[in-house]
Amino acid sequence: MSSAACIFCKIIKGEIPSFKLFESDKVFAFLDIQPLSRGHALVIPKFHGAKLTDIPDEDLLEILPVAKKIAKASGATDFNILQNNGRIAHQVVDHVHFHMIPKPNEEEGMSIGWPTQATDMDKLKALYEDIKAKM
Amino acid sequence: MSSAACIFCKIIKGEIPSFKLFESDKVFAFLDIQPLSRGHALVIPKFHGAKLTDIPDEDLLEILPVAKKIAKASGATDFNILQNNGRIAHQVVDHVHFHMIPKPNEEEGMSIGWPTQATDMDKLKALYEDIKAKM
Repeated sequence: MSSAACIFCKIIKGEIPSFKLFESDKVFAFLDIQPLSRGHALVIPKFHGAKLTDIPDEDLLEILPVAKKIAKASGATDFNILQNNGRIAHQVVDHVHFHMIPKPNEEEGMSIGWPTQATDMDKLKALYEDIKAKM
Repeated sequence: MSSAACIFCKIIKGEIPSFKLFESDKVFAFLDIQPLSRGHALVIPKFHGAKLTDIPDEDLLEILPVAKKIAKASGATDFNILQNNGRIAHQVVDHVHFHMIPKPNEEEGMSIGWPTQATDMDKLKALYEDIKAKM
């Protein structure tokens, strides 16, 4: 399944050139041309879907082994794996993509804001029962 | 393989209680008790290793399908999947863990800083050939 209007589907098909690092039946990987750091790469399922929840399990299996392979080959020791779902969550292209972003120093790579909420065991227990019932 | 000193290995073994959402031979998932938002959960390989590059491929396969399952059950429509490698990359516990962090609004969930570098095609091409040769 692919989308004619999707820039990542065009990259997969070779209609738009890319620095292709990996390709299999299910997965495609290439360098990000607007990198946050040296080695910043994208690993995507060939299956077109905007959010993680749109992708069949079988199309997800190979993603992390490929991200791992690229991280190793890039020589990065510190790095982030990030996949965003929705505009508010920083997603720009509506085709699921996993960033592998080396973090060589404070200036390069992504930065993370972490507004931790207070631990509320009663609230967590209620939430847990709610989510568990839906799985 | 597990580590006696590791807090996540203790959670897997049940020596420390958790709000367990999923368990299989290879994967364990539970609610983060210092959440950034309602539904913030962690998906971890049972195999103990600090960084993604330390985990065998076979122990990674089920991670994303489980993260997807939890995202669906949480009811989140917008969310981030994040896995950090190294202190500078915001890793705190040295056992690989994938965050599933709902992003319901600007205040809750993680925030992301994105210091894009200039696109330099010559540099990218040289980097591409370097990484490609190591894969």
